[in-house]
Amino acid sequence: MKRSGKMKLGLSMRSLGYHVAAWRHPDAPPLGALNFESFYWAAQAAERAKFDMVFFADSLSVRGRDEPKGAAARSSWNLELEPITVISALAPLTKNIGLVATASTTYNEPFHLARKFASVDFISGGRAGWNMVTSWSDDEAKNFSQTHTKDYDFRYERGAEFIDVVNGLWDSWDDDAIERNQQSGVFYDATKVHSLNHVGKHFKVAGPLTVARTPQGRPIIVQAGESEQGREIAAASADVVYTASDEIQRAKAFYASVKGRMEKYGRPMDALKILPGLTPFVGRTLQEAQDKHDQLQELIDPLVGLGALSRKVGDLSDLPLDEPLTRIAGARMKSAGDKVMAIVKEENLTLRQLYQRFASANGSRVVIGTASQIADTMQEWYEAYAADGFNITAARLPADMESFGELVVPELQRRGVFRTEYEASTLRENLGLPSAESRYAGGEGVRSVTEILAAAGAAS
Amino acid sequence: MKRSGKMKLGLSMRSLGYHVAAWRHPDAPPLGALNFESFYWAAQAAERAKFDMVFFADSLSVRGRDEPKGAAARSSWNLELEPITVISALAPLTKNIGLVATASTTYNEPFHLARKFASVDFISGGRAGWNMVTSWSDDEAKNFSQTHTKDYDFRYERGAEFIDVVNGLWDSWDDDAIERNQQSGVFYDATKVHSLNHVGKHFKVAGPLTVARTPQGRPIIVQAGESEQGREIAAASADVVYTASDEIQRAKAFYASVKGRMEKYGRPMDALKILPGLTPFVGRTLQEAQDKHDQLQELIDPLVGLGALSRKVGDLSDLPLDEPLTRIAGARMKSAGDKVMAIVKEENLTLRQLYQRFASANGSRVVIGTASQIADTMQEWYEAYAADGFNITAARLPADMESFGELVVPELQRRGVFRTEYEASTLRENLGLPSAESRYAGGEGVRSVTEILAAAGAAS
Ligand SMILES: Cc1cc2nc3c(=O)[nH]c(=O)nc-3n(C[C@H](O)[C@H](O)[C@H](O)COP(=O)(O)O)c2cc1C
Ligand SMILES: Cc1cc2nc3c(=O)[nH]c(=O)nc-3n(C[C@H](O)[C@H](O)[C@H](O)COP(=O)(O)O)c2cc1C
Repeated sequence: MKRSGKMKLGLSMRSLGYHVAAWRHPDAPPLGALNFESFYWAAQAAERAKFDMVFFADSLSVRGRDEPKGAAARSSWNLELEPITVISALAPLTKNIGLVATASTTYNEPFHLARKFASVDFISGGRAGWNMVTSWSDDEAKNFSQTHTKDYDFRYERGAEFIDVVNGLWDSWDDDAIERNQQSGVFYDATKVHSLNHVGKHFKVAGPLTVARTPQGRPIIVQAGESEQGREIAAASADVVYTASDEIQRAKAFYASVKGRMEKYGRPMDALKILPGLTPFVGRTLQEAQDKHDQLQELIDPLVGLGALSRKVGDLSDLPLDEPLTRIAGARMKSAGDKVMAIVKEENLTLRQLYQRFASANGSRVVIGTASQIADTMQEWYEAYAADGFNITAARLPADMESFGELVVPELQRRGVFRTEYEASTLRENLGLPSAESRYAGGEGVRSVTEILAAAGAAS
Repeated sequence: MKRSGKMKLGLSMRSLGYHVAAWRHPDAPPLGALNFESFYWAAQAAERAKFDMVFFADSLSVRGRDEPKGAAARSSWNLELEPITVISALAPLTKNIGLVATASTTYNEPFHLARKFASVDFISGGRAGWNMVTSWSDDEAKNFSQTHTKDYDFRYERGAEFIDVVNGLWDSWDDDAIERNQQSGVFYDATKVHSLNHVGKHFKVAGPLTVARTPQGRPIIVQAGESEQGREIAAASADVVYTASDEIQRAKAFYASVKGRMEKYGRPMDALKILPGLTPFVGRTLQEAQDKHDQLQELIDPLVGLGALSRKVGDLSDLPLDEPLTRIAGARMKSAGDKVMAIVKEENLTLRQLYQRFASANGSRVVIGTASQIADTMQEWYEAYAADGFNITAARLPADMESFGELVVPELQRRGVFRTEYEASTLRENLGLPSAESRYAGGEGVRSVTEILAAAGAAS
């Protein structure tokens, strides 16, 4: 059951990589994730490997300030550069790779975001993307004059309207609106510039945008929510979905669930690419890969590892680290505690082994092996329609991107499941997405996401 | 009365330059101000000329949509890239020059702006600056869920509080907060990280920022308001003031007024640099300079020129263009009409000559001449304490920056009033500003701008 076409690959970047101990590795850059150079090297390695895009996650607060015993101060994750500035800086330094930054619909204004991503699309010649998130933590709310995060429905409702407005603003100028007739003195055709005049529940935005329609028509929209509302928004309006499945059956179900919702919005299934996260540890031999993995695991600070685990199952600080675990005191969530104890018993784990297991995965699939073993897993997921490709959540940057590019990518290319050269210069075209039609282009008239969701009875 | 020290120079960029007809010049880049390359060339030319900074003005709406006869469609000003993305993109492409972007305190959140400018400061190695504006137009309000711009006092009050919060967030991390002890596993010293816990009239912001204290300590703050409130905020908290005086006596009075307010805030006068705008037309001969100027003036579309003039004095469209003007029909503002008619009579101007006169100046001083004549004016202003330097509002980009760098800068250097090499790698040091002390650094404790203004009884 060979699947035709090629898989798509992104490099997801967070701090110095997705592994909590990445900063303790001897090769880690001194300034941590405040060091632009390390993102630049990683982006260059990803572009050499013909990746579709680099992707920057984000959060809007320092986390864990109130955690016991200073676990937060033992993590490098709280310090990082703001991603829109990072993708802007990468734009003139790269040529073909897509540049995706995360930005929240809860604490931003659509005019600002539409304008910034449109600008990056011009600076990069058609490679900008926006990962739309709704922000869930109270810590973030407190940096924006609020005391608690708004509830789920409010955030997703605002998020859907936000996307509408942004799409509308991106359509402000028709493709051929700029005449630039130096002789006659007419710079643009005013009949081809549209005021949005959006009036909604959360926003009133007149428009037009101060940036013309971009090289991609519209920048790419990535969505990363997994709930019903998240899936519905993705089916209605996202170009890419980033997910965190660690198991193929679950990934297949998610894939089918999201793609199955697209038809009612009049969208073909391949107008949306679903990319689960995947953390590879690759070696020339299995042993080398395993050693790479174990070396990082050994560097996990017990406080950091226990901190992450404790948030799930309660305080564990009085238990011995290196003896087989027999109980978990005062599990915070019973179901989580039971699930964890089942794993512990089955595998006879110590407390250290247990937190290591949780600390490295971060929700995505971890694959340890040779290039051929890692390619096997990727190909299996791709061919089973569990994924259209992967967002590589490298454990350590830029090192793990470099080794993936040198070892795994040639293997995927040999098998014919990944490109050997960029097909085009825009992210939209490289992803194989249909071109973005303006809502003013005539024909049926593109409906807004809010209208679509209402019609589908899906916005809860 | 020689003045010691050197003048400071910025290049102010707007669209394809400050002249409304810049886009009609045969050498103008096709995409207009959506073309990143032309900003890059201009920034390179400014860096070759050892300028302190490049500076990007901004506005948040398409202007003049309701103007009669489509004058707006005859201007290229409505389309431009968002400036924070532009300075981010310039950061890794430049080495010494400061990078200043305009951003509004009325339509932004302080956490976002503090973070973005801090990130650019890291990416550029200490060269970021923020031009703080309060946004005055209704067109802009309508893109941010409002119907009218808020009144003056509200905007300046919010602006002052906004600066406080941003400064506080920039101080979140002490200079030595990051330990990065790979052995012990401690990444930062939690006692050296400060939650701001700001609770004010306009904002509640907990902090800390997710970016460490930056290479400059704090990015540079530029201020460009000329009212009482604007001057007071500048004296209390700005590093640079950008002004638009076209006459030396008025410039001297403004300079003295702003600097005279600094003492009560405990700030030495040279902790603030006042840079008026200046539009040079330079040639190897006076004739060449004059021709350069006249060529652009000839390209001013009558509708664009009349449109700008009409906003001041009312409709002029039924008057002949090339006969001496005798009356102005229905002047909108009597005082403006009288002032204009006085000039018309004194100089016996035609309507075309009149709008040309207004269209090229844009409020700043225009100087047409040889390098030596332009340097004379600059030196005169500098030595008379009418200016600490200039923000060059080049008529046409990048061409006028290139000719200024090739002709005028060597003349200023020969006279010893401008640097021949950068003194340092940060903008703050090149501007000769004192280092930025953190509010947590002990000593007297830096007061907030709001407190300072209240104590001075200055915030109206
Ligand atoms: C793979 C993945 C990546 C995510 N990345 C971010 C991120 O970078 N920043 C953020 O604020 N939220 C992020 N989120 C959170 C989502 O935007 C969303 O708030 C969260 O998943 C809860 O919504 P849901 O129940 O629809 O999944 C991510 C979620 C997933 C599944
Ligand atoms: C030289 C100069 C440059 C300015 N540049 C901008 C700008 O780029 N964007 C903007 O919104 N306002 C700009 N302004 C407007 C000011 O921020 C302010 O709103 C306006 O001057 C009114 O305030 P004031 O009465 O204190 O001068 C500028 C003002 C001056 C004097």
